[in-house]
Amino acid sequence: MSVLRFDMIAKLDQAEPLAEAIRSELVQVTAVFDAQLESDQPCVNALARHIEHYRGKMLRPMLVLLSAAATDRWPAGLARILPGHRVLAATVEMIHMATLVHDDVLDEAELRRKGRTINALSGNEAAVMLGDYLISNAFHLCSSLGDPRLNLALGKVTNTLCEGELVQLSNRGNWELDEPTYFEIVRRKTASLVGASCELGAELAGANDQVSRALGRFGEDLGIAFQIQDDVLDLMGTDDEVGKSTGRDLAKGKLTLPVVKLLRGECSDSRVRALDLIQSNDAVGLRAKVVESGSLEAARNVALGLVHQAKGQLACVPPGPVRDLLHTMADAVVDRSA
Amino acid sequence: MSVLRFDMIAKLDQAEPLAEAIRSELVQVTAVFDAQLESDQPCVNALARHIEHYRGKMLRPMLVLLSAAATDRWPAGLARILPGHRVLAATVEMIHMATLVHDDVLDEAELRRKGRTINALSGNEAAVMLGDYLISNAFHLCSSLGDPRLNLALGKVTNTLCEGELVQLSNRGNWELDEPTYFEIVRRKTASLVGASCELGAELAGANDQVSRALGRFGEDLGIAFQIQDDVLDLMGTDDEVGKSTGRDLAKGKLTLPVVKLLRGECSDSRVRALDLIQSNDAVGLRAKVVESGSLEAARNVALGLVHQAKGQLACVPPGPVRDLLHTMADAVVDRSA
Repeated sequence: MSVLRFDMIAKLDQAEPLAEAIRSELVQVTAVFDAQLESDQPCVNALARHIEHYRGKMLRPMLVLLSAAATDRWPAGLARILPGHRVLAATVEMIHMATLVHDDVLDEAELRRKGRTINALSGNEAAVMLGDYLISNAFHLCSSLGDPRLNLALGKVTNTLCEGELVQLSNRGNWELDEPTYFEIVRRKTASLVGASCELGAELAGANDQVSRALGRFGEDLGIAFQIQDDVLDLMGTDDEVGKSTGRDLAKGKLTLPVVKLLRGECSDSRVRALDLIQSNDAVGLRAKVVESGSLEAARNVALGLVHQAKGQLACVPPGPVRDLLHTMADAVVDRSA
Repeated sequence: MSVLRFDMIAKLDQAEPLAEAIRSELVQVTAVFDAQLESDQPCVNALARHIEHYRGKMLRPMLVLLSAAATDRWPAGLARILPGHRVLAATVEMIHMATLVHDDVLDEAELRRKGRTINALSGNEAAVMLGDYLISNAFHLCSSLGDPRLNLALGKVTNTLCEGELVQLSNRGNWELDEPTYFEIVRRKTASLVGASCELGAELAGANDQVSRALGRFGEDLGIAFQIQDDVLDLMGTDDEVGKSTGRDLAKGKLTLPVVKLLRGECSDSRVRALDLIQSNDAVGLRAKVVESGSLEAARNVALGLVHQAKGQLACVPPGPVRDLLHTMADAVVDRSA
């Protein structure tokens, strides 16, 4: 975590005081994150350094901090960001990274299936144990705040998150997957933690239930939109991305929203052809089909609608640069290409 | 968890009031355990039922309950077992089962290496996700007690446990492993949770620090002895056991105490021959060697010494049936054949 990527706030003017404040907060969040993972065992520290490869956009920590700042008028809202918010922000990022590391077990297994089995075993185990180390440290870090409600809330969120992963796993290769099930999976595996980052960030800042819940709904809508955009990118990624990501969902038998819409479309004939493309793993043909059928646009529109709905949830927070930044982040979630 | 195995108290007279009390407490612990894992998602409940295959001796829950009862004279000590102890007992068992489930990822990977790859991928992922679900629920369950010290203590224990697994992983195939490193691994991956089960059980019963720490040390010594006995069984298991367990440690490049002692022995010539046996995976030859060299007996004596030391830790708790049962359990740890 030594080098940070703040794609979201990079969009903003460097000199902008809010961007500066958040940037310096995130540096402290990173310090809390790194200090928590420090072990007296060198081999543990060496492995923990691998998680830099999983470093993301720091979306969840930013939402924790901004949700705190959003609970009061500018610039007073900045004073709502307490030391506890850095701990909470580092905790949600650690939970998020644990899920990425364990998702990686699946990727390594993929490689294994293609025959590259050397070190795959230890790599697989290292990923499992490192993920466990992250989950454990996340709960330990959160416990250091001494607030049982936070532990209980985050424990519930991670239960929900695991349930989402398990439901997704049980629906692998289920080409009959309907939209309600798709959204239930996404709400649990992705939106629950993003929503909790906002809601708990606001709660810890002393916001009332109405404001905390509104920010929680903002985060949930944002999280679902984020996952739909991930789906779209995985399906439609450019040639540059093909190597690293494109088509992975399909290869894993995971249906993305555009494909769900395509397969559930009215025309049974087009469904048959779509299934052929999927089963013959013809990503190019499938891309053409989701475009031609309009199911890609339909999925995009769902994401855009969720972003619009998310922004609407913020009506009850004071207007100003913090709310503006949250709006900007909401737009960025569906505009991004990586 | 619907059917329980209480190997330890099965040794006792069924009518014995303490055995009866513990048996009925464990039934309630199991109810707490099952209720915690109950999900609104049928596929999650179906997978969670798999953990019955990982069901153990309920050693840790028993130690939580008995450590509480040991903090006062018989029979008043029984009243020291509070509803919170059932929650703590279910929590430590859930943490333990999570480690068993994730160890299973390794076993499935073994199968995969032998070429049986059909369903290995999904089996592997299911094991990872189920383990995560158990860890998450363990922390959520513990948080329901509303005692931040418990969360912090258990978070620290699971950090230590993961570190033990990671150090063991990094020493896989290290035939130079010395005893201090071996004991550091065992203390972290096994003894830390057993010790915490005793110490936290006593703390929750209102014991003073001296008694809580003494019970914690009892559990730590017991945990190390338990692991050494596991090592011995894995290495020397009967033909019946061979199929399911014997030699697994060696196959995974994990050194057991008898083999550590054999390889670190004075006689460099015998070390060379021992290494030949290990690298040619000659379990039968290796067994003969650890017996002939006396390193098996030496390892057994370390375990017996730890059991003796563990019993000595209990000098500060009131004499009576509870302390007697803890002594019986300590002996059973090294007497068991499974």
